[in-house]
Amino acid sequence: MKYKIYIVGMGPGKEEMMTFQAVHALEASDVIVGYPVYLNLLENRFQGKERLSTPMTQEEKRCRMCFEEALKGKTVALICSGDAGVYGLASLMYEIGKDYPDCELTVIPGITAANSGAACLGAPLNHDYCVISLSDLLTPWEQIENRLRAAAQGDFCIALYNPSSKKRADYLQKACDILLERLEESRACGYVENIGREGTRAVTCTLKELRDRQVNMFTTVFIGNSQTQLEDGKLVTKRGYRL
Amino acid sequence: MKYKIYIVGMGPGKEEMMTFQAVHALEASDVIVGYPVYLNLLENRFQGKERLSTPMTQEEKRCRMCFEEALKGKTVALICSGDAGVYGLASLMYEIGKDYPDCELTVIPGITAANSGAACLGAPLNHDYCVISLSDLLTPWEQIENRLRAAAQGDFCIALYNPSSKKRADYLQKACDILLERLEESRACGYVENIGREGTRAVTCTLKELRDRQVNMFTTVFIGNSQTQLEDGKLVTKRGYRL
Repeated sequence: MKYKIYIVGMGPGKEEMMTFQAVHALEASDVIVGYPVYLNLLENRFQGKERLSTPMTQEEKRCRMCFEEALKGKTVALICSGDAGVYGLASLMYEIGKDYPDCELTVIPGITAANSGAACLGAPLNHDYCVISLSDLLTPWEQIENRLRAAAQGDFCIALYNPSSKKRADYLQKACDILLERLEESRACGYVENIGREGTRAVTCTLKELRDRQVNMFTTVFIGNSQTQLEDGKLVTKRGYRL
Repeated sequence: MKYKIYIVGMGPGKEEMMTFQAVHALEASDVIVGYPVYLNLLENRFQGKERLSTPMTQEEKRCRMCFEEALKGKTVALICSGDAGVYGLASLMYEIGKDYPDCELTVIPGITAANSGAACLGAPLNHDYCVISLSDLLTPWEQIENRLRAAAQGDFCIALYNPSSKKRADYLQKACDILLERLEESRACGYVENIGREGTRAVTCTLKELRDRQVNMFTTVFIGNSQTQLEDGKLVTKRGYRL
């Protein structure tokens, strides 16, 4: 293995929420490749590095760019927000990597929005939990519905990614309606906007209220399990300790 | 709010895998409270700080210790491995915190084993996923079985925490048998021992093989979804890109 590519999870945004390992990988790289929004989050750090990007929806091209740069003898870092292995480009890099057997991939984990958002709300994922994306860009909606029903049936705490976008304005409402087939309207829920960035806002509400909230693509939504309670404005899932 | 307590997720072990935010919180604290194993992971760092601990199973006492120290005017950090909000002490701190209204809690997220272990194996959680603990210390086994069945029904990628211990030597086998009610024997799986510590070892196998593997309490287990494949020794869950 001659050529080195790091696939770096940068956490929710602020450099403060990156790991030392992630920063060291970026420092060790000659080129940083990423979606423009993520490159901008790095701001003035790593100024000596070459920066390359492709627009949204050109993920395959962005990945191939990493391998092509590596083959020139450069150490490459591909940055993803949150964790590169959670709805990020890690798996696509491994798939494409079959065409580039001389390149070695290393995934550097980052804090994904389920966990960084949970910290803003208190402790909503403090027991078994599911992470589900409501984006049907790459996943059939029927499969998303099936997973929502399974999550409700298993009494999991749930973190929902990509709860809404301009084209999918009613997806959170549809998801809540599916959960309400089984869960009570008073189920404790919450959501966090702009985790780890300017304008972070954490809100708690019931599942019935959540159904009618307007959220955007920079929001992560949390649905409690049957043991989740609102404690002084925080969303807290009990582990089962007897106090 | 006069008294400040940080609940800090330290990630899997190595300081390299902590966030800057976590290190800054420890630096800002007068006292670091934690289970002895986690305090030892900090090694020689933060030597000027008072260190306090309680043995395993004395979690409530450990939490109350944080509040009592804070009431003395000290800034306190409670450390947990991984993420304090994932099977950690964050929710217990909020529950007990009702008795200490002058103390303000801040959760600092860390990399939980689902994500740090996934990075060692490739990209096994690169689509919707569940995190389930097999420990029945605080959770009835029937509920764990129900969640395993729901996870299989929803075609989730699965990360299993606490897959085994001396008293629960056959729990992983029992869990695999439940998953095998619905999933094929060839389902791509893997496990990682000692994530982020000395002796890290990542292994891939089928679900049938996993059933008979001996794992210990320092192991995190991964079961792929129907789109997960073994690619050159890595466990990779496809997101749905058409290449």
